[in-house]
Amino acid sequence: MEFGWTGDPVVVYSLYQPMSSRIITLTTDFGRKDYFVGAIHGVILSIEPRARIVDISHEITPFSITEAAFVVAQAARWFPKGTVHMVVVDPGVGSSRRAVLAEADGQRFVAPDNGVLSLVYEWGRLRVRQIENERYFLQPLSRTFHGRDIFAPVAAHLAAGVPGARFGRLIDNYIRGSFAHPERIADRRWRGIVLQIDRFGNLITNFAVQEFEPLLRRGFSLLAGRRRVTSIRQCYAEGKPRELFLIAGSAGYLEIASNQRSAASLVGCAAGAEITLELSS
Amino acid sequence: MEFGWTGDPVVVYSLYQPMSSRIITLTTDFGRKDYFVGAIHGVILSIEPRARIVDISHEITPFSITEAAFVVAQAARWFPKGTVHMVVVDPGVGSSRRAVLAEADGQRFVAPDNGVLSLVYEWGRLRVRQIENERYFLQPLSRTFHGRDIFAPVAAHLAAGVPGARFGRLIDNYIRGSFAHPERIADRRWRGIVLQIDRFGNLITNFAVQEFEPLLRRGFSLLAGRRRVTSIRQCYAEGKPRELFLIAGSAGYLEIASNQRSAASLVGCAAGAEITLELSS
Amino acid sequence: MEFGWTGDPVVVYSLYQPMSSRIITLTTDFGRKDYFVGAIHGVILSIEPRARIVDISHEITPFSITEAAFVVAQAARWFPKGTVHMVVVDPGVGSSRRAVLAEADGQRFVAPDNGVLSLVYEWGRLRVRQIENERYFLQPLSRTFHGRDIFAPVAAHLAAGVPGARFGRLIDNYIRGSFAHPERIADRRWRGIVLQIDRFGNLITNFAVQEFEPLLRRGFSLLAGRRRVTSIRQCYAEGKPRELFLIAGSAGYLEIASNQRSAASLVGCAAGAEITLELSS
Repeated sequence: MEFGWTGDPVVVYSLYQPMSSRIITLTTDFGRKDYFVGAIHGVILSIEPRARIVDISHEITPFSITEAAFVVAQAARWFPKGTVHMVVVDPGVGSSRRAVLAEADGQRFVAPDNGVLSLVYEWGRLRVRQIENERYFLQPLSRTFHGRDIFAPVAAHLAAGVPGARFGRLIDNYIRGSFAHPERIADRRWRGIVLQIDRFGNLITNFAVQEFEPLLRRGFSLLAGRRRVTSIRQCYAEGKPRELFLIAGSAGYLEIASNQRSAASLVGCAAGAEITLELSS
Repeated sequence: MEFGWTGDPVVVYSLYQPMSSRIITLTTDFGRKDYFVGAIHGVILSIEPRARIVDISHEITPFSITEAAFVVAQAARWFPKGTVHMVVVDPGVGSSRRAVLAEADGQRFVAPDNGVLSLVYEWGRLRVRQIENERYFLQPLSRTFHGRDIFAPVAAHLAAGVPGARFGRLIDNYIRGSFAHPERIADRRWRGIVLQIDRFGNLITNFAVQEFEPLLRRGFSLLAGRRRVTSIRQCYAEGKPRELFLIAGSAGYLEIASNQRSAASLVGCAAGAEITLELSS
Repeated sequence: MEFGWTGDPVVVYSLYQPMSSRIITLTTDFGRKDYFVGAIHGVILSIEPRARIVDISHEITPFSITEAAFVVAQAARWFPKGTVHMVVVDPGVGSSRRAVLAEADGQRFVAPDNGVLSLVYEWGRLRVRQIENERYFLQPLSRTFHGRDIFAPVAAHLAAGVPGARFGRLIDNYIRGSFAHPERIADRRWRGIVLQIDRFGNLITNFAVQEFEPLLRRGFSLLAGRRRVTSIRQCYAEGKPRELFLIAGSAGYLEIASNQRSAASLVGCAAGAEITLELSS
């Protein structure tokens, strides 16, 4: 068996690439215990030895498309324009789900077409292509590890300067999740969700700070799990012991937090849980 | 106390090194909580500042030589030829166990001589040396952290272009484990083992796809833990709920899997467990 | 909203930087599940695309200043002089705690002023500045994520060649913890602490090998948790089954260890626990 990519030379494309476009970030649910991430690094470096690979996270909860959507959207926006972001949370690997190449606000993404780019699709200047040109895939193609066999070589060729149009045609029927915004269910009431629980136990909601923080000034009640949150703080250290409070999180969303404690264990709910915000009248 | 490497300049060797040979991968059971991995990166960059270090895994189960052997063999084959792979799972550190430098199929490896390279030794074009030239070790040499004091500086000097022969003489009595192949125990029956349980709970066996998949077509029964597996699927998404099935894994071995579930918790057995395959007649 | 750093060009500073001074290491309690580490990499690479980023650890126990102090001091000393080490364990983020830029023994550090550099402050050639020049911070500045908004851009500008004096004035009232040395409480008796428990369950004490190992030769008794340790071994493999022993650890401190077992679970105590050493007369 032959391994690796044995197609066209990529040198011709990459001579005039700016350095930033050779950055490739990885966001997956592969963990770091297995050989998966190592194999992906190897495939990328075999195709584009000058690629700079940044591991954003491989600890996404297995199969959690919402969590991966949140993490990659939050991390990607800080990278130089032209960076290639590879996102692989892919419960449908080997089935008929498509692969996509998206450009949004100058960042580039390769991912399965399963909603994992939903928050990125909110950005401006969006173009989405279906990845279908098999000459950029590894051969033989496995049915269980497209991170290595499709997404890694496509990301490496992009970083090496292959134009996006080579990979496939533009599409507009890509899959978008509904978790990008809270739903208004009454005049002064919204239903939202917990996008992610971070390492410190803060619950990141999908209530955007810019839209909702000004509305909270006359009083509010946020129902999450078995607890009701009614205060807002400027920083974690301001919280009283065991107090649950809202904070304008660094991700641009309201977070339910507690000072040096896990808010998630006080609240007793998980990522994906529904929450309800009601404004005082 | 003086730290770091203070020996010969290495510049003369490295002027004409291809870029790929300056890649160094790390596979250890050190975890990422401690200072161990950071110290290894520091030692390597102090000796060869142009080294590109790739962390394959530091989450190998502590002292598990089988698991490290599997992970490094699976990841290493995807890297450019000439890459240096450092593998440190080393329960015998500081005792009389030897250190080895192996070349196999164009990849280079530094590791303790305890069987951790057993699967790499199956590859072609194999040469194994004992690492014994102390001028490439850090001084003073600790008795508990040869990853930092021996393997990291040897890997860095290799990446910088020092020829392999400088480190020690060729040997042929290096240690090989017996876990590379299943054992045939009757005409239509084999005894194998579980090489690794991956993050998703798939059980990777030592039954090679190329050799065994064609034999399964007329029916089979694989006994693992308290469960019997009798079906084979093309991809995870094809599995029925709670069904255990075999799949041709991306590592080239048959895996026991389940659709979006941990097969390991359904089967109830751990890495290293015996499994028995019987073919229908 | 605009993201990223939009201030002065940094090119002029970095033309003549040696390669080693563009290494930036990261030690945090952010974990690898969230977007935090990815955002920090992105901010750094947006400011200094040639930076080489090394993740020392993001698995520091949340809010554990002692553990971070130990890990960064142990890892940093192996890096080339001029390396920038960013340390963010920061329970007081957003409050009035200061940020510091320290130079010690040729290494450079950026961190909150909360004691996390206490062990580094023991090194020679120490200079400490308060970081106060806001032109090197991201705008708008969040109140919850100074790792991204202050420490990452300051580290990147340092790596790009901006002189230390640009960031703020020298200070001498920075915060030092008391955990650097054991306290002598009687003629032949000392009270120390457990600095860290490593992945293998070894308990790293603050008894320095150079100072204390020579004193142990005529016999000793070390009380830790509910166990008494009275033997010392040269390497882990020399220990008898279930024996607890001291070992001269690779970090330069005495460690309480056991052969292929977790000493911590035998002893039953955690990082930060008090231990007492008594010498035989």
